[in-house]
Amino acid sequence: MTPERFATLKKVLNKRQPDLTVIMDGVHKPHNFNAIIRTCDAVGVHEAHYIPVTERYRELTNTGRGSEKYVYARRHKHFTDISKPLKDQGYQLLAAHLSDQAVGFREIDFTRPTALVMGAELQGLNPETAKRVDQHVIIPMQGMVESLNVSVACAIMLYEAQRQRLLAGLYDDVRLDSDVYNKTLFEWCWPKVAELCQQQGRDYPALDESGEFQSFQ
Amino acid sequence: MTPERFATLKKVLNKRQPDLTVIMDGVHKPHNFNAIIRTCDAVGVHEAHYIPVTERYRELTNTGRGSEKYVYARRHKHFTDISKPLKDQGYQLLAAHLSDQAVGFREIDFTRPTALVMGAELQGLNPETAKRVDQHVIIPMQGMVESLNVSVACAIMLYEAQRQRLLAGLYDDVRLDSDVYNKTLFEWCWPKVAELCQQQGRDYPALDESGEFQSFQ
Repeated sequence: MTPERFATLKKVLNKRQPDLTVIMDGVHKPHNFNAIIRTCDAVGVHEAHYIPVTERYRELTNTGRGSEKYVYARRHKHFTDISKPLKDQGYQLLAAHLSDQAVGFREIDFTRPTALVMGAELQGLNPETAKRVDQHVIIPMQGMVESLNVSVACAIMLYEAQRQRLLAGLYDDVRLDSDVYNKTLFEWCWPKVAELCQQQGRDYPALDESGEFQSFQ
Repeated sequence: MTPERFATLKKVLNKRQPDLTVIMDGVHKPHNFNAIIRTCDAVGVHEAHYIPVTERYRELTNTGRGSEKYVYARRHKHFTDISKPLKDQGYQLLAAHLSDQAVGFREIDFTRPTALVMGAELQGLNPETAKRVDQHVIIPMQGMVESLNVSVACAIMLYEAQRQRLLAGLYDDVRLDSDVYNKTLFEWCWPKVAELCQQQGRDYPALDESGEFQSFQ
């Protein structure tokens, strides 16, 4: 662990947004999955969620450029397994979906706790999922084609969220709670040791100021 | 040609932005190429440009969802073959590229004639190309990974251009000149007839108010 790397990891962690996330419900092309995780990393999403429709997501990890190591992608069997707890925590669930109730994405207040729900590449949003979100959102288009690539649509909305959150100062102070912060910092610094601790049911050792830790007790 | 389809084609053409374009210099993954063309269509780019590094661009056209029929993708042998004429026409050439001179993309005036130059997926922008553009542009990132997927980066900038151009009223009036408008309208309405005319060196027949044309003289 070089001091520079330790500083970089903390700098990134200092800007993570615990109340901004993406739920991929049906996204199945690895390059889209990875591009979404990569954009999540870029705007400070701490963890993303997906409902698996294939086992292939993590092929081609190259296209994520390593972002999969820094954004937790949580797997859920059903959409409601994640939508319900997020709603209970006060999140607004937004889905990119064309409907009578849809509003333009620039009208959304993205400084609120927000989960963006992204549907499948060709079929779009699952109709059941569409009923379960709070708001349908559209990205204005002036062209012939009626939709954007899913990772592109997700990025356009995440960057609007970033724009609003920069203005609101939400990147200025640490926003992860200290337990999550310390746990994540250890996992980013020492991924293999963290895995070993998990397997053995041990707590992570404390990190000193240079990111090192004493040998296990 | 149904009246609805003719109206849709004209509605889209009425919003095309002749002074907003993308130059792909090294983009080589078909899904990125197609996603870029699809976003171009969505924000009203009339023609895009590319310097080929593969013959595979138009495989997987499915991922473009038909946008390739509505955005002209002009092929050039060298970057300067297109950069020079655009500069002569007063375009600002912007490249997504990290350098000392780079400015944030939200500071750019995208209502000016603008060409976005996008480099290759892994290598990034060609150093020679980097020297030939007017301005390096960065997209702020708060994560570990230092770049975004190329089609994502392009879309984020194109949507900032769209935002500014909507505010400036640049989608309110027809902006293509009437020759280009009429030529394009014919090609969109009757692609096979247009191809035949080109092969035979004939002018396109005039369209009547319902989008039909009289038989050839």
